[in-house]
Amino acid sequence: MENRLTRLLGITYPILQGGMAWVATAPLVTAVSEAGGLGIIGAGGMDGKQLREEIRLVKSATTKPFGVNLMLLSPAIEEQIRVVKEEKVPVVTTGAGNPGSLVEEFASLGILTIPVVASVALAKRLLRHGIQAIIAEGMESGGHVGEVTTMCLIPQVVDAVDIPVIAAGGIGDGRGMAACFALGAEGVQIGTRFICTTECDVHPAYKEAILKAGDRSTVVTGVTTGHPVRCLKNRLTRKFEELEFHGACKEEIEALGVGKLRAAVCGDVEEGSVMCGQVAGLIQEIKSVREVVAEIMSEFKSTISGLKTLVGEG
Amino acid sequence: MENRLTRLLGITYPILQGGMAWVATAPLVTAVSEAGGLGIIGAGGMDGKQLREEIRLVKSATTKPFGVNLMLLSPAIEEQIRVVKEEKVPVVTTGAGNPGSLVEEFASLGILTIPVVASVALAKRLLRHGIQAIIAEGMESGGHVGEVTTMCLIPQVVDAVDIPVIAAGGIGDGRGMAACFALGAEGVQIGTRFICTTECDVHPAYKEAILKAGDRSTVVTGVTTGHPVRCLKNRLTRKFEELEFHGACKEEIEALGVGKLRAAVCGDVEEGSVMCGQVAGLIQEIKSVREVVAEIMSEFKSTISGLKTLVGEG
Repeated sequence: MENRLTRLLGITYPILQGGMAWVATAPLVTAVSEAGGLGIIGAGGMDGKQLREEIRLVKSATTKPFGVNLMLLSPAIEEQIRVVKEEKVPVVTTGAGNPGSLVEEFASLGILTIPVVASVALAKRLLRHGIQAIIAEGMESGGHVGEVTTMCLIPQVVDAVDIPVIAAGGIGDGRGMAACFALGAEGVQIGTRFICTTECDVHPAYKEAILKAGDRSTVVTGVTTGHPVRCLKNRLTRKFEELEFHGACKEEIEALGVGKLRAAVCGDVEEGSVMCGQVAGLIQEIKSVREVVAEIMSEFKSTISGLKTLVGEG
Repeated sequence: MENRLTRLLGITYPILQGGMAWVATAPLVTAVSEAGGLGIIGAGGMDGKQLREEIRLVKSATTKPFGVNLMLLSPAIEEQIRVVKEEKVPVVTTGAGNPGSLVEEFASLGILTIPVVASVALAKRLLRHGIQAIIAEGMESGGHVGEVTTMCLIPQVVDAVDIPVIAAGGIGDGRGMAACFALGAEGVQIGTRFICTTECDVHPAYKEAILKAGDRSTVVTGVTTGHPVRCLKNRLTRKFEELEFHGACKEEIEALGVGKLRAAVCGDVEEGSVMCGQVAGLIQEIKSVREVVAEIMSEFKSTISGLKTLVGEG
């Protein structure tokens, strides 16, 4: 299935893999790009050297397009930007803010920037930098979140811009992908579903925690600090709630989060921050990336065929 | 378009109008039922006498099916239940809890109960009472909300039950309706879009406030009290935030909310509680109920036709 987005990115299926820090490393990224989607390295916790190694690992394993996600608030952001430029990474997605003139800077080197936004206002502001696609992310997603849900955000961003909108947040299967396309999206970005794959190299306990999760297993912590994060409820999130509900200062709350995603990725799913989306409850099995992509595309098509029948056009 | 839900309810289109307290009164309810959907009276703030009057107004204006929404925590709930039984209301929707054996009690009188749930667990528990349909409501909806978004909740409830699921929360147009059907819903419940109709008799300032709203104009207050409510950001919600972030007790916070929805419905959109969903940003115009229903159905069908083309079946 070809559309504006697959042509822009040179991919087979309009599926991007979320560039999750510490989680989206070369094995997962390579597998997604090889399966016809766009694998994206999560530069999050990496310094320049680590990021370069990861990029080279991906380049050595696939000739397909791939991306790097840059968290604009990362302390190593300057180094990361330099490496991305030197390595001429095909696609960069940006989170945690407004990439501004970085879009033009990257474009001059042939690097496509796709910003992640959580509001219509930021989507509109970014248009003036000549972006060619945008990721609109609902608050059901994992990690850092906004406040508008995917169901409400996507049609409003679609109405506000004339470039392809990629929906993120709450998409775990082909039904979710079809729903987002109904809302006007031309692609989806999927994170949590890709964590539960054989290729993703997080600790097995992280994957197991997601498989065990139900619809109400996630919580958003850090609302009072202005940096809300969605992860699985556990001992750590209960500590966060105690601090937040008892008027702890921002610094104290933020200190509790330091190193906790890394801890979870290494297997501490009780004291670590098991970031994942609300869609965790929908995920029942660990599969290969190729199977996940094939299943999503197949269910996407069967869902649309089903809708057709429903309105008497089947 | 006929399906299990339209047959069960005897309606033309699988569209229910949310039974909003103080807002969903006879004129709106009648108009929605006459337009082919299911109008639902919001019994919320009414005593038995008022509810009976409202029901009789609807009965005198339409022969089509209609419903009553009962808030199970309402102080007048016993009276309201008696009136609903005596008036043999065709459909009852229930919010704010588990209707339990009320389902069987109503069924023996030919009254169909459709509970509103915000979680998979409650959906499953209600199956044992013989419910024939269920409304799964995402946290983007207006008024009292849960925590799971429509995009994540609908497929999980659909997978857990074998009765028709009606999606609520975040649906303002035919794209949203098509998205919910892609997720497996067989009907939608729409609240906010129906407030902005000529027939809805809330104060014009309430409707204007919704038309002016953007994607980030709503907020959920009362999270710390265990009774979160979504409404438009205004002076009242800022007062709520001050109380909640400064450790006020539950009673103090709840006292601030008393009578505030009624105040907003009467036109005080700054000190009143302007309950509405996050979808408010999508609503641009006041139209008649008939136009709204026709537009939603027409866009629902065109959206599905568009999806078809996309996957090369057009």
